[in-house]
Amino acid sequence: MTSETSDTVTAALLVIGEEILSGRTRDENVGYIAAYLTRIGIALREVRVVADVEADIVEAVNALRERYTYVFTTGGIGPTHDDVTTDAIAKAFGVGANVNADAVAAMRQHYKSGELSPARLRMARIPEGAELIHNAISRAPGYKLQNVIVMAGIPRVMQVMLDEVVPRLAKGRPIISRSVRIDAPEGDIAPPLGALQAAHPEVQMGSYPFFEKNRLGTHVVIRAADEASLDSALSALWTVIAEEGFEAVPADDEPGAS
Amino acid sequence: MTSETSDTVTAALLVIGEEILSGRTRDENVGYIAAYLTRIGIALREVRVVADVEADIVEAVNALRERYTYVFTTGGIGPTHDDVTTDAIAKAFGVGANVNADAVAAMRQHYKSGELSPARLRMARIPEGAELIHNAISRAPGYKLQNVIVMAGIPRVMQVMLDEVVPRLAKGRPIISRSVRIDAPEGDIAPPLGALQAAHPEVQMGSYPFFEKNRLGTHVVIRAADEASLDSALSALWTVIAEEGFEAVPADDEPGAS
Repeated sequence: MTSETSDTVTAALLVIGEEILSGRTRDENVGYIAAYLTRIGIALREVRVVADVEADIVEAVNALRERYTYVFTTGGIGPTHDDVTTDAIAKAFGVGANVNADAVAAMRQHYKSGELSPARLRMARIPEGAELIHNAISRAPGYKLQNVIVMAGIPRVMQVMLDEVVPRLAKGRPIISRSVRIDAPEGDIAPPLGALQAAHPEVQMGSYPFFEKNRLGTHVVIRAADEASLDSALSALWTVIAEEGFEAVPADDEPGAS
Repeated sequence: MTSETSDTVTAALLVIGEEILSGRTRDENVGYIAAYLTRIGIALREVRVVADVEADIVEAVNALRERYTYVFTTGGIGPTHDDVTTDAIAKAFGVGANVNADAVAAMRQHYKSGELSPARLRMARIPEGAELIHNAISRAPGYKLQNVIVMAGIPRVMQVMLDEVVPRLAKGRPIISRSVRIDAPEGDIAPPLGALQAAHPEVQMGSYPFFEKNRLGTHVVIRAADEASLDSALSALWTVIAEEGFEAVPADDEPGAS
């Protein structure tokens, strides 16, 4: 992508959970995290969803942490037998995982002393070398081990962990974008849009068809690293729209708005 | 997993689309496809989301098609410059991609002759050796090349393609499941549930916490390949619930219901 610079900060997201793959639970975390990272200047490049199977998690974590600045994971850090993420992360890094005193102290704020059972203390097991990510809701922490950020799967808990860890992360310049909704099918827009992209290599033009009231339309999204490039390409797009006689309106360009 | 048998049919899903990674569009296809495949006896084992970048798609397709019975892809088969899926699939298989006469014939049912522009004819380019997957909505076909099934990204179009291709696929015995909603946090349920799983290795027990009205609760899902195993494990779960004094109710166990 032309908006890539040497200081681009990239990320992958690894969603851990059999319930997503079986279709039982509709994932809510991917869209939230994608929009969040885009806003703060971290480019999400890849998402993977795997089951709660240690070997699968180890393989995915090791593939992704080599390739991207950060790897975020969600899920599998609870107290039950099918929560295997911490063992997998420890194995991926070749370290042990032990009950962490700071994690226990945090959990004591939430649980009465009798409630801190061996099962719950599993949630205080943290891989060696990791720093904790506190969560104000249920207190059992996530953690950051080198460039891998391990979070809960429950959306509200994941969200407080993300807020907590983000100040510690490097960020790039946020990619900015503008969208235009064109009431014409992609096939009509493709030739002038292809020419426009070729003439504006400094921006990235995406074309997203939709199907509404039995008619096909297209959202065109222009992404750029700076306002001047964005404005120039957007102005050229509106010229093309007028020349071609398309009906079009500016569309909401906030990440997560579509 | 203990429900695995030699005739288990597995799948991966590859979602292709920058708009998902930027957070602009919330994916609707993963949950739909996951629930659909589960119902018909195809076990979805992995999902990946990558951008519209040829090299990334080639790498993911080649990794996944070696590993699973089927690979489903969504997105990137439209007429615009950022639709690179067909070139990537052809490259992954080391074959060419040419305008396919049957695909053009199908598209003539939808487009007037003057509308079949070079841009639209890009949608009739099909990798050599692939069989078409017709779509009654916009006519531009998907296709199946060996074990890789290439579909559109627009949910309604993807859905008709899925209906069209599924009769041609091998299916295993559908995994059946029952869910119980327990109004207790996972930490309280973990010890008896772990013991129950150990006593019933023929089923898979999953535990999914939720956070509702400021209280933590847990859905326990039991999955099995046959009714007898399922009933036996479910009955044992209800015994444990009574012994522990948990409040619990049967929950909807349809894939996609949560």
